[in-house]
Amino acid sequence: MKLSQYNVWLLCFCLAAGVGADELTHPFKARQVVDLTHPLHQDMPFWPGTAPFVMERLADYDQGYRMHRFSMWENIGTHVDAPAHFAEGGRSVTELAPNDLVVPLAVIDARAQAAQDDDYRLSVEDVLAWERQHGRVAPGSLVVMHTGWYKKFSDPKAYINQDEAGVLHFPGFSVASAELLLERDTAGIGIDTLSLDPGNDLSFPVHKIMLGAGKFQVENLNNLDSLPATGAVAVIGILPVTNSSQAQARVFAFME
Amino acid sequence: MKLSQYNVWLLCFCLAAGVGADELTHPFKARQVVDLTHPLHQDMPFWPGTAPFVMERLADYDQGYRMHRFSMWENIGTHVDAPAHFAEGGRSVTELAPNDLVVPLAVIDARAQAAQDDDYRLSVEDVLAWERQHGRVAPGSLVVMHTGWYKKFSDPKAYINQDEAGVLHFPGFSVASAELLLERDTAGIGIDTLSLDPGNDLSFPVHKIMLGAGKFQVENLNNLDSLPATGAVAVIGILPVTNSSQAQARVFAFME
Repeated sequence: MKLSQYNVWLLCFCLAAGVGADELTHPFKARQVVDLTHPLHQDMPFWPGTAPFVMERLADYDQGYRMHRFSMWENIGTHVDAPAHFAEGGRSVTELAPNDLVVPLAVIDARAQAAQDDDYRLSVEDVLAWERQHGRVAPGSLVVMHTGWYKKFSDPKAYINQDEAGVLHFPGFSVASAELLLERDTAGIGIDTLSLDPGNDLSFPVHKIMLGAGKFQVENLNNLDSLPATGAVAVIGILPVTNSSQAQARVFAFME
Repeated sequence: MKLSQYNVWLLCFCLAAGVGADELTHPFKARQVVDLTHPLHQDMPFWPGTAPFVMERLADYDQGYRMHRFSMWENIGTHVDAPAHFAEGGRSVTELAPNDLVVPLAVIDARAQAAQDDDYRLSVEDVLAWERQHGRVAPGSLVVMHTGWYKKFSDPKAYINQDEAGVLHFPGFSVASAELLLERDTAGIGIDTLSLDPGNDLSFPVHKIMLGAGKFQVENLNNLDSLPATGAVAVIGILPVTNSSQAQARVFAFME
């Protein structure tokens, strides 16, 4: 076979650059890291009616090594909802490409509102006020509502906040804010509570709108205090379980 | 309370930079991404005597959403061995800091040797030959042996390669190469097979040396063909299971 000059050039390019590498839509520079992930263990909070995280010890040092088995519902801990969680035919966890999982963060501070009202819903005005200060939410961003709730994670009763009638109380997004964020063509939304919808709305309208539009969601985020309003990029290391609709993720934020 | 000028400065700095962000030992620039992770599913290979990955469906769209439960041994799929896997008192998975999980990659191509010998052990000369071409292995690197074996992952029988006597046959590191890489003060080692030790050595000498020295290991890596010999940085999104000795990880490599 005779190689044309073009083929030789292509071969050199592929050897140098790595065949199969994807160009990032959002290239970034990293000098600092923040871990946005809660550790997984048996005492962590979980959605009422589901089950705790289980780690069983199967072997220990008397056998030469330590070994465990994990068992968990796909929605416990810091995790991603893929569109397929609510939207039939929507992308599953393994249909989110690596490039989809590298996203600029827009962090909206709603701590003051959430401190006043456990059922607070992020408003359109909250988003617009953020934009007046930081500029329009960039397309492809993950918009994170920072409620401060993640600090309650080590106290499951306070984090879940279920009343005597069984109703959950924690803040979330309003339908109108979710619709505005769809207009901004975001990659998705995230929050430091159990759900993107506020705890007292089990009809999950925000889930239906966002996942129905092919966006993804991140729940139970940690350490949001350590993030700037803009300028951080999240690398969402979702566990690639084939055809699952949600999965645990190790989420790191990188800053220049 | 009266704020001193120092305190005001400190407050401004913290608000701007994010309290709790860690400075990276290995800052990096990312323009391209490669996914080094195998998807998790019931038909994937697993270590003989352990169990397959299980995903059970607990709810589907007739109930409004899809929901699953995952069950897995901590060593199935692309995963990290923390020092605690073999070394009593060694760091567990959640004692690896985010900064430890961002590491430059040094990729040693041993495909030609592995194609000739299923039991091939990476030699000291292989490492020295790599260093003559690419320079000394940098401290803090993850040194990855690229055997080409990851292409067999979809064929578990070929990947595990167990003979009639029950002996496994796949390539790994030699003890002497592991000792040399300890001298280089690497962060750890990785491979695209089931184990850092070759399949036919169940006394796990490389595990004992590396984990005993406080290093970590990554097994069952994917897509090594897409990596350059140097210049990529891995972000190892290990599932933070409290006190576990190994855990699955989503591993991305970033390149400029």
